[in-house]
Amino acid sequence: MSKLLEKIKSPSDVRNLTDSEKELLCSEIRDVIINTISVNGGHLASNLGVVELTVALLSVFDIPKDTIIWDVGHQIYTHKILTGRYGKFEGIRTKGGLTGFPSRDESDCDPFTSGHSSTSISAALGVTSADHINGEDAHTVAVIGDGSLTGGLAFEGLNNAGRLKKNLIVILNDNKMAISKNVGSMARYLGYMRTRPGYLKAKVGVERVFDKVPLVGKPIASLIRYCKNILKKTIYGPNIFEDMGFAYYGPFDGHNLAKLTETLSNAKEINKPVLLHVRTIKGKGYNYAESEPNVFHGVGGFNAVSGKVEPSGENFSSVFGDTVCELAEKDKRICCITAAMASGTGLVQFASKYKNRFFDVGIAEGHAVTFAAGLARKGLVPYFAVYSTFLQRAYDNLLHDVALQKLKVVICIDRAGVVGEDGRTHHGLYDAAFLRTIPETTVFSPCYYDELRDVLKKTAEEDFGLVCIRYPRGKETPPPTDFVFSGDDWQLYGDAKAPVAIVTYGRVFAEAVEALRELRYSGIDAKIIKLNKITPVSDAAVAEAMNSRAVFFFEEGMKQGGVSEGMAALMADRRYRGIVNINAVDNAFIPHGTMKQLLSDLKLDREGIVSTITENLLSLRKD
Amino acid sequence: MSKLLEKIKSPSDVRNLTDSEKELLCSEIRDVIINTISVNGGHLASNLGVVELTVALLSVFDIPKDTIIWDVGHQIYTHKILTGRYGKFEGIRTKGGLTGFPSRDESDCDPFTSGHSSTSISAALGVTSADHINGEDAHTVAVIGDGSLTGGLAFEGLNNAGRLKKNLIVILNDNKMAISKNVGSMARYLGYMRTRPGYLKAKVGVERVFDKVPLVGKPIASLIRYCKNILKKTIYGPNIFEDMGFAYYGPFDGHNLAKLTETLSNAKEINKPVLLHVRTIKGKGYNYAESEPNVFHGVGGFNAVSGKVEPSGENFSSVFGDTVCELAEKDKRICCITAAMASGTGLVQFASKYKNRFFDVGIAEGHAVTFAAGLARKGLVPYFAVYSTFLQRAYDNLLHDVALQKLKVVICIDRAGVVGEDGRTHHGLYDAAFLRTIPETTVFSPCYYDELRDVLKKTAEEDFGLVCIRYPRGKETPPPTDFVFSGDDWQLYGDAKAPVAIVTYGRVFAEAVEALRELRYSGIDAKIIKLNKITPVSDAAVAEAMNSRAVFFFEEGMKQGGVSEGMAALMADRRYRGIVNINAVDNAFIPHGTMKQLLSDLKLDREGIVSTITENLLSLRKD
Repeated sequence: MSKLLEKIKSPSDVRNLTDSEKELLCSEIRDVIINTISVNGGHLASNLGVVELTVALLSVFDIPKDTIIWDVGHQIYTHKILTGRYGKFEGIRTKGGLTGFPSRDESDCDPFTSGHSSTSISAALGVTSADHINGEDAHTVAVIGDGSLTGGLAFEGLNNAGRLKKNLIVILNDNKMAISKNVGSMARYLGYMRTRPGYLKAKVGVERVFDKVPLVGKPIASLIRYCKNILKKTIYGPNIFEDMGFAYYGPFDGHNLAKLTETLSNAKEINKPVLLHVRTIKGKGYNYAESEPNVFHGVGGFNAVSGKVEPSGENFSSVFGDTVCELAEKDKRICCITAAMASGTGLVQFASKYKNRFFDVGIAEGHAVTFAAGLARKGLVPYFAVYSTFLQRAYDNLLHDVALQKLKVVICIDRAGVVGEDGRTHHGLYDAAFLRTIPETTVFSPCYYDELRDVLKKTAEEDFGLVCIRYPRGKETPPPTDFVFSGDDWQLYGDAKAPVAIVTYGRVFAEAVEALRELRYSGIDAKIIKLNKITPVSDAAVAEAMNSRAVFFFEEGMKQGGVSEGMAALMADRRYRGIVNINAVDNAFIPHGTMKQLLSDLKLDREGIVSTITENLLSLRKD
Repeated sequence: MSKLLEKIKSPSDVRNLTDSEKELLCSEIRDVIINTISVNGGHLASNLGVVELTVALLSVFDIPKDTIIWDVGHQIYTHKILTGRYGKFEGIRTKGGLTGFPSRDESDCDPFTSGHSSTSISAALGVTSADHINGEDAHTVAVIGDGSLTGGLAFEGLNNAGRLKKNLIVILNDNKMAISKNVGSMARYLGYMRTRPGYLKAKVGVERVFDKVPLVGKPIASLIRYCKNILKKTIYGPNIFEDMGFAYYGPFDGHNLAKLTETLSNAKEINKPVLLHVRTIKGKGYNYAESEPNVFHGVGGFNAVSGKVEPSGENFSSVFGDTVCELAEKDKRICCITAAMASGTGLVQFASKYKNRFFDVGIAEGHAVTFAAGLARKGLVPYFAVYSTFLQRAYDNLLHDVALQKLKVVICIDRAGVVGEDGRTHHGLYDAAFLRTIPETTVFSPCYYDELRDVLKKTAEEDFGLVCIRYPRGKETPPPTDFVFSGDDWQLYGDAKAPVAIVTYGRVFAEAVEALRELRYSGIDAKIIKLNKITPVSDAAVAEAMNSRAVFFFEEGMKQGGVSEGMAALMADRRYRGIVNINAVDNAFIPHGTMKQLLSDLKLDREGIVSTITENLLSLRKD
């Protein structure tokens, strides 16, 4: 089928195609993407939206000499396919296969590894400034979506790039969407700009008309002079991007390959920063994705023919969403905030039920937290639901705006721990550690839905100041029949007298429960100290650990700065004399794979726990 | 002297003054501020710039029912003086006295504790949204400088506030300065706006003129119709703030009290977000500060009559600045970046010597780091000099844009540790801990100038990936005569056979050296394991610690997640059986005072080290 694609070994092969071949190429690419992602899952709609744009970019720019940086990077599939990775595309997002994001490790054609939004303009400015200093004559392009433009980092990039005295091309890929509908006054403004046809033509037209009109007749002449002055003033600052120092062109149809190619060629010749406003359709070319782009933004497997997406069913996000709705019904102080992730974090129901207490702030996690502090200052109880990886962008806001003021703000951290296929840019492996460094912060890490429900209720009722609740992506492993959630900050599972203690929290507890049984078969008596509140750790939990001859920590998060380290140090301070063994992510970035594969690789699943404990105890006996 | 001031017990007393009394009040306030800050040190120029604005705000708004949030907050002195704290103003920034920033703990009139820039719009939006939900009829004002406006968080705030359907007043306090001259295309744009006299008047004028002109004469008529359409289009989006959904008024003279008061009263009545553009003069009313506002931005003591500021002499910042200049002379790859802190971080010389390799990015730490990643991507070696407290704003950029890509970027962290009088919002007590949570990151913490020079050289020559060098505010304690810097990642000071080990790093080592001598007098033999590289800690340093009967950690930083915890956990894992004792900042925010006072309070000075060790060993003997 994909005859043309098989011939494309590098970007130069794209350049050598005719226009009609390129159109055909786009169609082949769409088929490949739809078929592959229907099996592997991934970012479908955003990729279908930029097929022509990618082909046009590779036709005009000479990479890797020139640099093309895709913001976020989840729309990189066409780029990967056309830069020597078509043969590997089938394995995208699977363990050992291509990543779903730009990756320098994969190809020189990916200049900048990424996964988080709004970084492209800053990075591109760095690249082009370096080229300038190095005396290299190369072009740099950043492609940024209108969603990513709501992030403050993008503004910082624009603010700094706007004073550049050389070419830098920022392509605004405007599809009216973040993951769901884009929000904020910038989004409204772009909507307004989209409806101004021939904006640039009009501007030039006015100047020409004025030049031709002879200044005759006194009142009319003075009026025209007046108009000219006003127009001059307004013309030179007529839209946000021009105000910021960019030459603005657009909006252009992002699916008109010939026009795009011509525009990009022209933009290269302008000796200042250029913003090209390109309109694209998220999901373009696949009806189901065009009509429901948010469903097909990040999607698991689906039926390519019918467009049927498997419903995800109950999961931690939906339990959070349902529970916070119940709480908000009774407690009118409860508000919910999302940073462009209403669907992913389970807030769709809340958004429609409690419109005036729901805030989608765009891709702006820093603002979300400081805004929450403002709400809390006036007695409301804000719940900010956010993926662990994106909360990294609000570290200072958590510390400086919330914790320092002892304001009651609840952060609901979704996708805590390994997230699977999105890989190293997206794992929620840092929050447990970095939250520990913020004074007077409380962190809960439930393992089961019921625990999540319980702690959500608790945070509504009590005032912890800054309190975080972290839970993993996906579904719970149902609790064992002999487990009864105590509602306490920690609890013991198993026989208190067992000489071996496993300390863990979150979903790893479910693995530890199974490991416990297996250890028993091998004659090793162990108990589990299950932390529910992981920061600060309860003194009684520490005492219980010290009441064991060996303590094995299993933590789905960074070892450095993590909960285990803290607890082990506390035990050392209290003169614990037994065995201490910490198992966590040790100073490394973790690649992609299924969550199950990754937990296994990290030895945080049943087998890993069993083998770690068994081997350690064996080596002790040998000593 | 200050007769009027003594009568002002609360904001309502301000409202009751006549116009001429208010003018007199402003003059009294300036005297008080200049005299107090000349003794205590503090933010002089920014405070002198907003005396009239503060009086006008307190005349128009009814706080604490209404909310006034000052961005950053270092310009809060007049506000403090007029809200019941005149009597305490003498003690501002001294231990136990008023803080130099807004503080909820001090007064209900300070709605939001702060110290970092660009948070005010987000916080104000939270407050006003909460008022709306609570059905409270109150006004909210955010006052933000043009410098703070370069921070992405401010843009996120504007983007979200612009769609508000109720009154919210953002006052742009435009003094053309961040701490030094403001930068970026936004700054240039504001400069352009400042020169447009009567902008709003003109707009109304045009519309009126058009309405009056009869449409006669064919070519002229069509021209006018054309103009009208163009004008309509441009008029409704004529400046950035209106584009973002704000009603824009200004620029106004920020020192014309009557006009300001009138404008604020009018702005209250507008049923949408309003941006008032106010021009102020930094240092207003004190000639020395007006002519050198950057010198008098944050200043130690000075002579109020002569305006003489004690030169600071050699310090860690200047050593960094001198060294990086020397390195850049030989190595053309070296670039320097500052986030509006060229002077504070010691980069003034570099900025003038190596113009094309120097980048002041505005108050945009996130951008600074991602931009550095872009430079590094193309083989340059960027040094980003930043205060520890502000680096908190770039956690994700460090992790996602630099460390993950293994890019060679050097972060020079100034003001690491307690910073003294700026207090709890500004202490650099978190970086050592939060940097540990970022994989594959290297952190050095020199104690002496020579060590700083050495490690700067080392980072230029070797590739550590993300590498941070942290050093304290101010001057070194000269090294003891028997100390020879080994240049290694750690070194032993004292007798290797001593049973007691002190583990420390940074300037606390200088205190430990003195403590060592004193302990010897008391018959306690101790050695010091001085860490130069604090992340990752050298294995040999851990082994040396384990070769002691008791290990005392002293760390000028957070205990939770800190270097001591990590090392103690490692020792536990390796079955250390001796005494472990960690002394660091334990889950608390630290107030203001001199650095000396704070180190003493934290028991991290000579005396604290001696008493901690002595008492611990005594209690052991009692056991």
